[in-house]
Amino acid sequence: MGDADAKKSEAANGEEIPMDGSIQGFESLHRLLEASLKPEIFKEVSRLLIGLNCGRPLERIALPESVGTLSSSHDFDIQAFQFHAEKEVMRQPQIVRVGLIQNSIALLTTAPFPDQKKAILQKLKPMIDAAGMSGVNILCLQEAWMMPFAFCTREKRWCEFAETVDGESTLFLQDLARKYNMVIVSPILERDINHGETIWNTAVIIGNQGNIIGKHRKNHIPRVGDFNESTYYMEGNTGHPVFETAYGKIAVNICYGRHHPLNWLAFGLNGAEIVFNPSATVGELSEPMWPIEARNAAIANSFFVGSINRVGTEVFPNPFTSGDGKPQHADFGHFYGSSHFSAPDASCTPSLSHYRDGLLISDMDLNLCRQIKDKWGFRMTARYELYAETLSQYLKPDFTPQVIVDPLLKK
Amino acid sequence: MGDADAKKSEAANGEEIPMDGSIQGFESLHRLLEASLKPEIFKEVSRLLIGLNCGRPLERIALPESVGTLSSSHDFDIQAFQFHAEKEVMRQPQIVRVGLIQNSIALLTTAPFPDQKKAILQKLKPMIDAAGMSGVNILCLQEAWMMPFAFCTREKRWCEFAETVDGESTLFLQDLARKYNMVIVSPILERDINHGETIWNTAVIIGNQGNIIGKHRKNHIPRVGDFNESTYYMEGNTGHPVFETAYGKIAVNICYGRHHPLNWLAFGLNGAEIVFNPSATVGELSEPMWPIEARNAAIANSFFVGSINRVGTEVFPNPFTSGDGKPQHADFGHFYGSSHFSAPDASCTPSLSHYRDGLLISDMDLNLCRQIKDKWGFRMTARYELYAETLSQYLKPDFTPQVIVDPLLKK
Repeated sequence: MGDADAKKSEAANGEEIPMDGSIQGFESLHRLLEASLKPEIFKEVSRLLIGLNCGRPLERIALPESVGTLSSSHDFDIQAFQFHAEKEVMRQPQIVRVGLIQNSIALLTTAPFPDQKKAILQKLKPMIDAAGMSGVNILCLQEAWMMPFAFCTREKRWCEFAETVDGESTLFLQDLARKYNMVIVSPILERDINHGETIWNTAVIIGNQGNIIGKHRKNHIPRVGDFNESTYYMEGNTGHPVFETAYGKIAVNICYGRHHPLNWLAFGLNGAEIVFNPSATVGELSEPMWPIEARNAAIANSFFVGSINRVGTEVFPNPFTSGDGKPQHADFGHFYGSSHFSAPDASCTPSLSHYRDGLLISDMDLNLCRQIKDKWGFRMTARYELYAETLSQYLKPDFTPQVIVDPLLKK
Repeated sequence: MGDADAKKSEAANGEEIPMDGSIQGFESLHRLLEASLKPEIFKEVSRLLIGLNCGRPLERIALPESVGTLSSSHDFDIQAFQFHAEKEVMRQPQIVRVGLIQNSIALLTTAPFPDQKKAILQKLKPMIDAAGMSGVNILCLQEAWMMPFAFCTREKRWCEFAETVDGESTLFLQDLARKYNMVIVSPILERDINHGETIWNTAVIIGNQGNIIGKHRKNHIPRVGDFNESTYYMEGNTGHPVFETAYGKIAVNICYGRHHPLNWLAFGLNGAEIVFNPSATVGELSEPMWPIEARNAAIANSFFVGSINRVGTEVFPNPFTSGDGKPQHADFGHFYGSSHFSAPDASCTPSLSHYRDGLLISDMDLNLCRQIKDKWGFRMTARYELYAETLSQYLKPDFTPQVIVDPLLKK
């Protein structure tokens, strides 16, 4: 099968060389700069690029040795950091340990679907164990983690992967949630049987006692390049719910919703302290946007953001065209990983690897959210009444923009 | 006068060493990385950090030799770049040359006020000449460029610098606009005589024929640290005007408004192609946010952003406290310059110097705005009806956030 086949075997073991012109062996921007710059220059570059948390560089935290063993034996990257907040007099710190998992698929997309699903569950198990053994309180997986991201193919047979909210993947995670006393956010392809077999892109929120707290459906659906996901599912109908868990108030802005500042805002207005952004996005399309949008959301809304992107290249059995006049091709591009956390004080963690599976852990003192609100006052200076009016005017078909024309242009 | 005096003389000539722990001689992040990294690593770091414009690294453009002479003789930094768009079949390119000026003050803040104002006009003259001689079509100056940024002092005497929209600074710029056939955006401290001597933070839009097209007043006013600017002026009452000039549709998001995604959005909904963000902000407070917010605005709204920050440390005659329990001090911190352009395709220019005066020029094909709208479809997928409703609900004093509580928490 030639070229496509070669790509497939690389994709299957998650070890492929990046296809997008990046430098071989380059794990992340942060590690590339750390290895290439003199320490005093790296320190200044870090201050500018990833900010300071409470005036200090971000600290790493130590994890149990058993977790390191798991990460070596199952070949995934693991990184752990700590966001501080200032000490308060009237409140205790509210420190939560949060985890993100990024991964490539487990089997070729040509394997039987039941085998693919079984394999991805098996593959995730040691990574979720590592999170649990590290004491993670809230863990989020990547978008549609239980299947290849097949929506570029426009073939409807991939809908067979869809599950009900209480389906196979949820059952699998409920056990682990219970075992580790850990909240798990599980983004799946959902089949809504009670509404005529409707397909949704949905995050299931599993409580730390293994119960299903609720679900949220992706609010904004891309129609970009290979990504016309409205072939499969439409805009979500669950509003902007914030889930009050044992460890904090969380929300989920799924994938393309990260391009919409109002989506982030609405989760913020509902009181989110941590917003996860499980995603599937490729290099040429979005890579320079990736850290910008998440960090801006954290800054503008005084909450933490956990950004997750899958890794690897997924090659599909039937080639497809992409509406760009180019020849048919069988893959979507390289999912560049680079999962990371952003904090409300404009600091962020370095990213996970550009091409390896990984678990990113960060402690975060949720007190930082209110501290930054008190410091910067973005909510209080936001003049929402202006914008409610602007939006309601804009929605009218005969909306006239506020334009002041240079009168000398008319002559 | 000791220490404070020494700082003053540094500030006055714009040549001071950065005070914020940054590396001596470090002009900008981009130039620091370029000097420190191997070319192939720098290329990849650039791709990640400043993106590609239409798939290519940003190109520099050549300026007339006379402009280089001016920049040497008056000791200001000058950089020029070119943003491309794709070629279209049905429209011609719409290439506009846009300039940004960042500068330190011209005299000590202890000098007589009329001398200070005269000196700053004189100082700006060769920089504006350089822009005009470079063929700049639209030029924007920094926030309150005609005075020191004295609002940290809370002393009302600085209001004497305020001018009417058709005052001294405007007259000065109208001549230059006419001479160079150049639109000039002039952010001033405004005195509104017709409304009881009200003070505003205002941008005056001067057309390329020297006429005043209109004004916009700063929408969001900070109350942060040393910056409680509501001591001097309140939230603007001019909405979100877009000015249709001879060279394109422009708007002005003044300073703290950059933290408000809805402010950017409203200019976008009114059709802005270029939004300027004239600012005055200091290192410890905002530096890691600086590129994030501007670039996010350009991405989210498919317009160009021109970000300007003043440079240098401005030392005031009377020390003041800052509400942080620390001893009184006479300066506000180091204004870190770093003016730059951001494009709708997520690329951006390198920044001007961290501590020197500078003129940044960029050609931009405004066709890129619509091209990116067609590609990404953010406006069409934005679901504004949801958010108009969310905001109108949120504005009610008895608003109840959409929170789903884990039922097991209640036990």
